[in-house]
Amino acid sequence: MSTQKTFRLAVVPGDGIGPEVTTEALKVLDAVAAQHGVTFERTEYDLGARRWHATGETLPDAELDSIRGHDAILLGAIGDPTVPSGTLERGLLLKLRFTLDHYVNLRPSKIYPSVGSPLANPGEVDFVVVREGTEGPYVGNGGALRVGTPAEIATEVSVNTAYGVERVVRDAFARAQARPRKKLTLVHKNNVLVHAGHLWTRTVDAVAAEFPDITVDYLHVDAATIFLVTDPARFDVIVTDNLFGDIITDLAAAISGGIGLAASANINPDRTAPSMFEPVHGSAPDIAGQQKADPTAAILSAALLCDHLGLTEAGAAIEAAVTADIEERTGAARTTADIGDAIAKRALG
Amino acid sequence: MSTQKTFRLAVVPGDGIGPEVTTEALKVLDAVAAQHGVTFERTEYDLGARRWHATGETLPDAELDSIRGHDAILLGAIGDPTVPSGTLERGLLLKLRFTLDHYVNLRPSKIYPSVGSPLANPGEVDFVVVREGTEGPYVGNGGALRVGTPAEIATEVSVNTAYGVERVVRDAFARAQARPRKKLTLVHKNNVLVHAGHLWTRTVDAVAAEFPDITVDYLHVDAATIFLVTDPARFDVIVTDNLFGDIITDLAAAISGGIGLAASANINPDRTAPSMFEPVHGSAPDIAGQQKADPTAAILSAALLCDHLGLTEAGAAIEAAVTADIEERTGAARTTADIGDAIAKRALG
Ligand SMILES: CC(C)[C@H](C(=O)O)[C@@H](O)C(=O)O
Ligand SMILES: CC(C)[C@H](C(=O)O)[C@@H](O)C(=O)O
Repeated sequence: MSTQKTFRLAVVPGDGIGPEVTTEALKVLDAVAAQHGVTFERTEYDLGARRWHATGETLPDAELDSIRGHDAILLGAIGDPTVPSGTLERGLLLKLRFTLDHYVNLRPSKIYPSVGSPLANPGEVDFVVVREGTEGPYVGNGGALRVGTPAEIATEVSVNTAYGVERVVRDAFARAQARPRKKLTLVHKNNVLVHAGHLWTRTVDAVAAEFPDITVDYLHVDAATIFLVTDPARFDVIVTDNLFGDIITDLAAAISGGIGLAASANINPDRTAPSMFEPVHGSAPDIAGQQKADPTAAILSAALLCDHLGLTEAGAAIEAAVTADIEERTGAARTTADIGDAIAKRALG
Repeated sequence: MSTQKTFRLAVVPGDGIGPEVTTEALKVLDAVAAQHGVTFERTEYDLGARRWHATGETLPDAELDSIRGHDAILLGAIGDPTVPSGTLERGLLLKLRFTLDHYVNLRPSKIYPSVGSPLANPGEVDFVVVREGTEGPYVGNGGALRVGTPAEIATEVSVNTAYGVERVVRDAFARAQARPRKKLTLVHKNNVLVHAGHLWTRTVDAVAAEFPDITVDYLHVDAATIFLVTDPARFDVIVTDNLFGDIITDLAAAISGGIGLAASANINPDRTAPSMFEPVHGSAPDIAGQQKADPTAAILSAALLCDHLGLTEAGAAIEAAVTADIEERTGAARTTADIGDAIAKRALG
């Protein structure tokens, strides 16, 4: 009898292509699990557009509590054109990120030599964005008056605290410290959003004093988008707020092999609640259910999940399998399941 | 004796490379003026970092009033590392845009066949961003509490009104109507910033009903950055809020020949105050005073100024001169003045 370690996964396949890519991520997780002496027990949650249409619910408290009892969450994608925009995003996805205090939203970007980039000369790209996940313009503060009249006014409030900014900045510095290039770039817009911007800038300056071997750099978000297309190789660790992080990580995905490869981790570094792993891409309803989606981003998110659970070898095995698969892509059409099968097989060694 | 028409220009050279590129823009304006039977009389304003250091002033009311008395404003660039971030941007540049009600910030992007793009296959790019200029997160609402303590909280409030959104959306539809492709894309983030986002979305839907031959499209800002690098040719007219417009127009400049070519117009369509014309690029203090800056963006902004004053032929002459100059660029180093001279000469015919 072996003493297999068991991890409890909460699985939220969600909308559109979410279920298809999640199936492949679980397939790969199961493949590596056996080899690394662990078991993934899972609870699947029926949350998203279907559920909302059926019951009007997005994320009932009982289910949120139940999800809390797991070691990690694997999420497919949230969002559907048949549901009013924002309902599922705010009521389900952001509710999970905020309630479970996922303050580090980690989004690595790297260019695989064999994958085309839309850039003519991308150079050697290998950076990670540490996007703040629990504050900024995403807090859901704001409202509207006299809706639908010519006198309507709508506000959105970005809330930023020293508490929230410092903890994510510290996390980003620690990550930069562990990387060979030891460089950190703060991205904000401190020449216009002066209150939030100065808080971010002062915090980075203060924490920098504790990390003397890290090179620190600042870019306005508009300038950052320029460098992401003209010189993405200059970046190592980027730390930024919730909204700017949303924008630049899609751009980062686009320049480095596309959104089909971009993985993300919503991390609660204090481990007071389970962290959540999801591809950066959306639910892509136009291709849902057709086995056309690339599950690689979901599979790479599962590798980040392994890392977070301390299963470093399993995570590395998944990453290596993905890299090998990507390197041999010929451009021939493969179904979502084909890609998952190929990566799972490689992950087995 | 001819009855030459005289236009009064307020000139704000500003900081960094601002004075150099403004000199060239004025040189080209003077070249075309004679040919088109007009005179540009100008008043130069000493505003920016030097003035702030000398007097602590950014834009005194007397000077703002004096500027109001002109037909248009030509601006170089604002911002300097020796001045606290935001002081000149908010106190001078944004004060001009807001006080003079520049609600249409127009930023065209086009790829000149002879200019390289960092994209491998950009396709035929020719679009214009209509960026709202007087609302959104730029309003300067917000503040900070307990600054410098661990209990600091900083907010930024995005203010959006039906009044402000509708007028810029109407302007964008009218521009789309006048263009051959007749397509309008709204860029926002209505799945997260639901109050502002729904106001923008509803407004576009409502105005669209009056423009039945315009194809209307919506993209989240994060997705828009993807398409700007994977398929920029899909865009015709983009309408968006102040902050999203800031971000995507820098990206648009980067993919289409660089920030050295990106012109902009801050327009008050109701003509209750002078409009303002400025390159999209910043003050680039690292190369200031070295004759290294490309004045093309400033010169193209002067062409937009001519268009706005009804000097369509003069504007077209400048644009044609710039296009001819760009098409014959060999990559040989030219000074800022060399480029201005070459374009002024061509503009003369
Ligand atoms: C779906 C949406 C709410 C989400 C976000 O804005 O964070 C997505 O764009 C992402 O980047 O994960
Ligand atoms: C300098 C800055 C305030 C300005 C802006 O954010 O609007 C600039 O980036 C621009 O795009 O004109």
